[in-house]
This record gives sequence, C-alpha cells and structure tokens, in this order.
Amino acid sequence: MEQKIHVALGERSYDVRIAPGLIDQIGSSVAELTGAKQVVVITDSNVAPLYAARVTESLAAAGVVSRVLEFPAGEPSKNFATVSDLLDELLGSGEPIDRGTVIVPLGGGVAGDMGGFVAGVALRGLRFLQCPTSLLAVVDSSVGGKTGVDHAAGKNLIGVFHQPVGVLSDIESLRTLSIEELRNGLGECVKHAVIRDATLLDFIETNAETLQRVDGEKLAFDSDVMCELLAKNVAIKAQVVRTDERESGVRAHLNYGHTIGHAIETFVGYANIRHGEAVSLGMVTANHIAVARELFAPAVADRIANLLQSLNLPTTCGSLDAVKIWDIMKHDKKARGGQVRMVLPTGLGEVDIYDDITEQEVGEAVESIDG
Amino acid sequence: MEQKIHVALGERSYDVRIAPGLIDQIGSSVAELTGAKQVVVITDSNVAPLYAARVTESLAAAGVVSRVLEFPAGEPSKNFATVSDLLDELLGSGEPIDRGTVIVPLGGGVAGDMGGFVAGVALRGLRFLQCPTSLLAVVDSSVGGKTGVDHAAGKNLIGVFHQPVGVLSDIESLRTLSIEELRNGLGECVKHAVIRDATLLDFIETNAETLQRVDGEKLAFDSDVMCELLAKNVAIKAQVVRTDERESGVRAHLNYGHTIGHAIETFVGYANIRHGEAVSLGMVTANHIAVARELFAPAVADRIANLLQSLNLPTTCGSLDAVKIWDIMKHDKKARGGQVRMVLPTGLGEVDIYDDITEQEVGEAVESIDG
Repeated sequence: MEQKIHVALGERSYDVRIAPGLIDQIGSSVAELTGAKQVVVITDSNVAPLYAARVTESLAAAGVVSRVLEFPAGEPSKNFATVSDLLDELLGSGEPIDRGTVIVPLGGGVAGDMGGFVAGVALRGLRFLQCPTSLLAVVDSSVGGKTGVDHAAGKNLIGVFHQPVGVLSDIESLRTLSIEELRNGLGECVKHAVIRDATLLDFIETNAETLQRVDGEKLAFDSDVMCELLAKNVAIKAQVVRTDERESGVRAHLNYGHTIGHAIETFVGYANIRHGEAVSLGMVTANHIAVARELFAPAVADRIANLLQSLNLPTTCGSLDAVKIWDIMKHDKKARGGQVRMVLPTGLGEVDIYDDITEQEVGEAVESIDG
Repeated sequence: MEQKIHVALGERSYDVRIAPGLIDQIGSSVAELTGAKQVVVITDSNVAPLYAARVTESLAAAGVVSRVLEFPAGEPSKNFATVSDLLDELLGSGEPIDRGTVIVPLGGGVAGDMGGFVAGVALRGLRFLQCPTSLLAVVDSSVGGKTGVDHAAGKNLIGVFHQPVGVLSDIESLRTLSIEELRNGLGECVKHAVIRDATLLDFIETNAETLQRVDGEKLAFDSDVMCELLAKNVAIKAQVVRTDERESGVRAHLNYGHTIGHAIETFVGYANIRHGEAVSLGMVTANHIAVARELFAPAVADRIANLLQSLNLPTTCGSLDAVKIWDIMKHDKKARGGQVRMVLPTGLGEVDIYDDITEQEVGEAVESIDG
C-alpha cells in the first residue's frame, strides 16, 4: 500500500513516502538520502515518549549517532524563545554538530515547523528529514518547505523557506491521535478538494465514516483508505508548491479558508480553537462571500458545509466580533499595504484570488455563521 | 569614478555600486530596484547619529515611508537575543510591515549580518538593500548573502543564505572610520590578492601609503584609488560567490587566514582583537604551514608578511596556547566529523583546501608567530 509522491523542485526535489511502519525506517532513509553519520531529532513532550526510542534505535541500526531534543508540546511553544533554547542545546551541548549533521523533526505541525526552522538557521542551513505524526502535518505543513514560528503580533511571522531532503509519513502514528485531531486534518483535506479536485470531495464524502472509525481509545481507520487519502492530498500540495515554491502566486490558493480562519483563531485565542476548526469556519465564510458575489453555486456551498458537519467540524460559532476580525485581517502578513486578499471558490476544484474584499462582505459572512 | 560589479546568481543576481555620495541615493535605489513603499533601516548606535537622518530623508524624497531600528554597536550585540529584540520592534510596533517591505541594513559587518538575517527570517524572507559603511563590510560581508549571528559556542553559527537586491557602498562613509578599522579591511584585501589575484597584491603594495593617509581625525585616502581597490576586491568576492553560492566548494577559499584566525579570536576573546588582526595572524600561520609543506615559496610568504606590517597589521602575537587553539579549530562549524580543514596558498593568487591538517603543524605555526 506504500505511496510515494515526488515534489519536483529542481535541485531541491524530494519524495514524500506514506506507509505503515516508516518510523522504523528513519535510520535507513537518513543513510540513503544523506549519508549522514549524526542526527539530531527534534520532537515534543507528547511525541517523545511514544516514538523517540524507536527512532534512535532505527538510526543506531543504520550506524547513525543521534540525540533527541525535546520541547513542551503545544502551539504556545512555537516561538522564538523555544527556538533559541533548541539552538542552545543543538550548538552548545552534546557531540558538536557540523554541516553534515541532519535534523529529524518528529511530530505534528509544531515540531515540523520548529524543527525545520532550527535546521534552516543552524550553521546557515542543515539538511532535514521531515517525519510528521499528525494528519494535519502529513497533508499540509510537512510538504513545501515552509518553516517558522509564531510571534505575539501573529502566526508564522518568523521563518524561512527550507525544503527537506524527504518526508516519511508513518500512517500508524496517526492511530494515537485523538479523533478531534484527526478531524482537524480532514478539514485541510476538504480544503484541497475545493481548491483543486472535485473527485477528492467525492472520496471524502464516501469514506467519511471509515476514516472516522474509532475502536476504544484508538483510531481504527482503514489503512488503505487512509494511505489513498493522504497520497491524493500530498499530490495536490506538491503540485501547488512545485508551481510556486516561494508563495508569490498560486501557492496562495492554499490559503483558502485561512484568511478569516486565522483571524478567528487570533480573535478567540489559539488555545481555544483547533486550527482545523478555524479553517472550517474560514471555508464556510469564504464560500458565503463567493456565493454573494455569484461566483459559486449555493448548492455546492451547502454540500461542503454538510461534509464539514459530517466530519464534526464547526460551521457556526457564537460571539464573534466582525469589526475586530476585519481589523485582524487587515494586519495579516499576506495583506499588502493594508489591502485584504482572499481566496474564493469559483467552482468545485477551482479558486481565484480577490484583492477587493470589503469590510461589509466580511461582516456579513461572519454574521452568517453566528450560532 | 563610480564602479559597478554584477553578482551573477541567476534570479538572485544584483549589482554592487561603489561611489561617493551613495547614501543619498538609497531612496531612489529602493524605488528603482523594488518599488517598495515601506523601508525599515537597521543600524547600530555608532552609525545612526552619522547617517540615519540622511537615509530617511533620501527615502522620503523617493516617496518611501521608513523607520529606523537601532541596536547597540559592537560584535557582542551580534546574537540571537538582539535579533529577537529587532524582530519584536519590526513586527510588533510601528506601521505594520508586509511582504513588500524592504530592509536596509546600514553600517559595518555586524549591522549587515544582523539586518540581513532579520530580513531573511521576517515573514519568511523580506528583500533587503545592503548599505555597508566599513571597508571590511564593503569588500567582504556585504557581498554574497551570508547573514547571521554569533552563538556562545562560536561565531556565525546561526544564520541564513539570503541575497540582497543590491549593495550601495558609499566610499565617503569610510572616511569616518578609525585608521585601525580601515586597516582591518585592508587585511581582507590582502587575503583576496593571495587567493585569486597577484596583481592586486602589487596594487596594495604600491598604494599602501595613499590608502592609509590621515588628515587630522579624518581618513584622507584618494577616492579614485579607494574605488579601484574596492571594485577589484568586490569583483573577486563576486566571482567566488557566483561559482559556489552556498559554500559547498570553492567559496571555502575565502576562509584563507580564517581557520586559525577564528580560533585566535575565540582564544583571546572577540573584544580583545580586531577581526582583521586575527585574519592577519591567520594568514601568516597558514603561510607557515604551506611553506613547511613546500607548497609555497618562503620569499612570497615574507613578501605578504612585509605588506601586512606596512599596513600596521600584526604578524606576531604573544601568549597564544597552541593546544587550546587546535581544540577550538576541531570544533569549528566548518570541521567535518572533527577533521580540520585549512586553505593553504599554493602560489600567489592560488590556494587549495587541505583536509589533513595535523595538530603538530598548527602547533608549529602558532609557535612561529610567538612574539
């Protein structure tokens, strides 16, 4: 069932592998892809107890010396101060690193963003092998080389574009996610469907139940279905990144659902809403604006909302302040000269970028999800 | 007398301009090269009182809004904590920035390295126009896109490769340097001559006196001679960088004089020796090893030492500990797997990289400069 997707970026090209059991192949992959003799694993306090020992054993079996740097789990850790602590450990303790050292970020989006950023700035850039263990990280943040951390002024304001030498996505690691975390990632899969691939929407609708199957504490999704879902999504992400590595054009399509979504996250506080929940609300509001502009059929907007509901993702939210949300959007790093840009659907599988979004449109869209 | 050198790096190409009065052309250059409407100048507490007002006036005249971020002058500021402070100011105060904002690092090597690094990581990479005001920065650090800061574990251990959109080197700004700072930069010019261009060594020998002319408090070098010197040096640096942007091969030639030089800096403390002085000692010791290996004629090594002396750069140094210097070299970020690499001259204008440097050779070379 293993799936392999090539991310074609010239001399920075790499493969994303998706299969069960890949955590035990990190050692052989590092050896094959880089020839490195030394690895530093960067992971968080949730993931370390689950997988760090297996990773270091896999590396040792391949003749690679490794050590593990651990930071406190959670988005609040994703900041410059934690990066500074990790760099102190990386550069100032243990066996000295050199330019041949490889970083292995292991975990969800936060570990990937931070580990990739540390790799990007240590010794002016070390190679790294991305090992995502959450659905959201597999389908989104692990592919494309965006790394970085949050700042008090906004999310992901500090970072670099730095491509990994490869991505290993072990689907078995997804079984230890909570069902809410899984749904968080399924929201991004819906996003990919809306921006690029109507058949992916069919696939998610058909398999919504299978994908959300739970057996006691553990997720019991069908492995083949999950591999196929991940491969379809990574292929979309890879194609977008290939066309526009540094986000000067169509890569912005991936921000569908994220403009109002990010503003909602900032407004309610990152600790109070999951990223996938905010994106779900962001897609519903973007669709509202697209329908009001007669770009998008109301029936398709309803179909997307129904799918999000069947994935237990929110389509309404109480106590949002439309004026404040607009203000946050105006200060988003993607706003140019204070002008708000949004990605709106123009058909199922098609989106476009609009620079002329008004406060009134956003206000009406935010009001439409009040509930 | 204006000189222009093209740094050919494909889509990351840019020009280095060298002339008097360029500080007053920063505004028009930013407008022409980037079309930006907003600039943030990053400079230090020595340079700000001298030039910040002229820079902001030049920008205002070109219709560009700007603000100035200032940090305490000196190498001890070149660290992650100062970068964090600058990012806080950049992202969290004043008019919000966006991806169109341009950074202007203004000052010596520290301002260029830090301003370039801040530009490299803010919003995952902003464009920047490098404006060096020291000789060392003009001929070395402003060209080639190396940015970064020091760490307790060593110099320049944290940073990114990030090319500027252009470099403006106003030679009049060099007249406010101390004569020691000027000589600091002349040491790097000797380095360029030894690694690539025997005729440049002749040029420096011929013009050593003119270049060091002082009139009261102010440097009184001949402008034409200085422009020519800078252009020759920037052309060498540009050619090396073009061949090997990310320092995987011949760019390492620029480390001639820097391996033992960096170790001496670390050993005596950055506050106690100028970079150019350490490089001068580094060249003399590298030459000693090259002569001992019979790679290099003793007469040429003597000629270089005499030139360094005529530039008032040190060729001897008391109280160095050869064992500790070797230990520091083994932990240099350029060492691979603990193996020490050095660049040694194989002829005037020619160098090669040697991976088999021994502790004994370094010990003898360090002893040879005891005085």
